[in-house]
Formats: sequence, structure tokens, C-alpha cells
Amino acid sequence: MRAMIFDLDGTLVDTVYAHVFAWQRAFAESGLAIDGWRIHRRIGMSGGLFARAAARELGREINAAQEEALQQRHGELYRQFLPERRPLPGAVELLATLRANGVAFGIATSGRRPEIDASLDALHIGRETVVIERRDVARAKPEPDLFLACQAKLGVPVAECYVVGDAVWDLLAARRAGMLSVGLLSGGYGEDELLASGAFRVYRDTAELHHSLDELGLLP
Amino acid sequence: MRAMIFDLDGTLVDTVYAHVFAWQRAFAESGLAIDGWRIHRRIGMSGGLFARAAARELGREINAAQEEALQQRHGELYRQFLPERRPLPGAVELLATLRANGVAFGIATSGRRPEIDASLDALHIGRETVVIERRDVARAKPEPDLFLACQAKLGVPVAECYVVGDAVWDLLAARRAGMLSVGLLSGGYGEDELLASGAFRVYRDTAELHHSLDELGLLP
Repeated sequence: MRAMIFDLDGTLVDTVYAHVFAWQRAFAESGLAIDGWRIHRRIGMSGGLFARAAARELGREINAAQEEALQQRHGELYRQFLPERRPLPGAVELLATLRANGVAFGIATSGRRPEIDASLDALHIGRETVVIERRDVARAKPEPDLFLACQAKLGVPVAECYVVGDAVWDLLAARRAGMLSVGLLSGGYGEDELLASGAFRVYRDTAELHHSLDELGLLP
Repeated sequence: MRAMIFDLDGTLVDTVYAHVFAWQRAFAESGLAIDGWRIHRRIGMSGGLFARAAARELGREINAAQEEALQQRHGELYRQFLPERRPLPGAVELLATLRANGVAFGIATSGRRPEIDASLDALHIGRETVVIERRDVARAKPEPDLFLACQAKLGVPVAECYVVGDAVWDLLAARRAGMLSVGLLSGGYGEDELLASGAFRVYRDTAELHHSLDELGLLP
């Protein structure tokens, strides 16, 4: 195995609960009451897909303008609720170890700039790192496009890439991309949900993953 | 089976994610950075126990005054983030069905008044309903005291009470009280975590539980 492709929110930075709560408030302000846990279980898919799926679950259809307005409001609330971003334990150290050992890695996120900029800064991600975001591809997770675009830019064959993510959408998209995946509990999913979605291994967070790189056959 | 004893947050009202986020901000303001998912997995134990456990995980000890200050700040942020409370789907209808069929029920929560008042109002819980809160017992969940106090007040034998909760702390406390328990996914735990903690059955939310009362041998 020669490369790791990372999801961002809930995998490398501790942002899932702020996202859940910002979506919940944005929906509530529009008169759409949606349960927190149902939002949580959809975090990681694209914002547009999420807004439509959530509205459908409430038995409502929303148009493109309403969808865009919900996304806009979610972004505002999110930045207000979480002005600073914090790497999850071990994330910065893990990336440093990969770099030091010549293991290729990139980030593939359903998030969009400028929302993700602060998270990338907190992780000390510079211009040398491959980052594929929502706008770089036609379709976000659970479609495989983000991971395939990242893999193509890294120049590593599909069969030699691990996807690392906290959500079932990462694992589903990884499977569709033909890649093995590693699940992390740091996004708040249960271990069974990640294993049932095809995770090859599940670790608590990037700190535990960091100490388990040998198990994954990644270090030289 | 003759009675149901309900947890409140995440079981009957959709408040878990607001609690998680309020705790996360309260800790962050005190210079204590704690991962969202670790907070989530501790929601439902008493606030005091929670604050001490979280600080210990960060390698810090906190004194009684700091613990009280954290709880105070959590309460303020929680009420600010979530001014209105919303019953989870089917909760109000489920309680009405129990009432109409003469099935005893009560609420046993690690929460405290006045924080829980708005939630009880949203559920149309009147003075006729048994409510045991944090201050009514010496020890909160995962100790069995809250459930045993509720059961005693209902006057139904332990062996004829179900506990209904969303957190492993409810299920652990139920086991220690000698009661069967039902887990709900509406607090955001995974099904495996609830089953592994001893849930007899797991449903999505109170709406699904409502339609499954016959499975539990509760209706006459």
C-alpha cells in the first residue's frame, strides 16, 4: 500500500458536532425540524445532497434556491459556532510521519472553500499537499469522484490507496472507487456501522491509526 | 411488564447535540479541548461525573469549584443554543398511549431543574407524572438510583419495569437496577453499543417504539 486519502471533517479535524448543530439550527430557522441524530448520520455527504435528503425525509421538496440558502446559512452558523478549528489527536503527527516516510497522501472532502480553509491551516496543510474539495468534482460522496480525483493527482494506483474516514459515506465511496478503507470513531459513528459499510479496520482516532501504520502495511 | 421508565435527553426530546456542543464550548472556554465524540459518548451521566471524567481524560484534575463553574457555563450555553425544545418523533403520542392503556410510566433523568423544565413542558408532562431528577438522588447514572427511585414511586416491582434510554449509561444503570431495557438510536449511539450494553431491544426512536409496544408485552 502506497497512499492514504483522508476525509477532513471528523477524521482530521474535530468539527462534526459543530456541523450537526449548525445544520440543525439552519433547518429550524426555515421551519424544518429534523432530529439531530439523523443529521449526524448524514454528515459527510455533499451539502446539497444532504439538504435535499433531509427535506425529503420531512416529506418536503426544496428547490435549488432554498437548498443554496440552507447551505449558506449553515456555513454562517458553523463559522460563528466554531471560530477556531482543532486537529483531532494525532492528526498532525500522523501526516508528519507519512511525509517523513515518503508515503503519499491527500485530502478529499465534501466541504467547500472557504469553509475548509481554517481546518487546513490548523493541520499545517501547505500548497504541496493534494486537496480535492467539493467544487473540484461533479459529484460528492457517496459518489467515488472525490477519491478518484485525489488518487489520480497522487499518481498512485487505486489498489494501493487506503481511504481514511469517519462516516459511512466515506466507506461507501471508497468501495465504489475500488479502494480499501479505514474507519475512525472520531466522527461519532458506532464501530458496527463502519465495519458494515466495508471498513477494513476501525481505530478510535488518528492517534491510534498513527500507532497502527505497520498493521496496514504502509511503512517501508 | 407493567411500567416504562424513560430517560429524557435523546430519548424523549431532541437535545443531545445541543448538550454535546454546549459542553464542548464550555470546556474550550476553560482551555480544555475535548473531542466532540468523546463528549457525545458521555452524555447521560451526571454533569458532575462527566466534568470530572472529561478532565481526567485530558490528564487534568479539577476541583469542586471548577466542576460547578463548568456545569453552570454548560447550562447557560445550552439554553442559549437551544431556546426551544422539541419532542422526538412519536414521544408525545407514545406517552398518551401508555396513559390511555393504564401502563404506568415515569421519567428519570441525570438532568437538573430548571434546565429540564422546558423539555417537560414540550412533552406536556404535568404534575401527575413521576419525574425523578438529578437532585432527588445521591448518585446519578450509571448508578441505578434514579431508576430505583422512579420505580419505587410508581409502585411497580423492578421485574415489571422497562427502562427506555438512548445512552449506554441508561442501559448500564438499568442492569444494575435489575430492570430490562430498551435502547433508542435517537441519541446517536450505534446499535451495537446499545446491544452490547444489555438492551433487550433497540428501536430507531419513540415513534418506532410506539408501534412495537406489543412486542414488549406492555399493552393489555
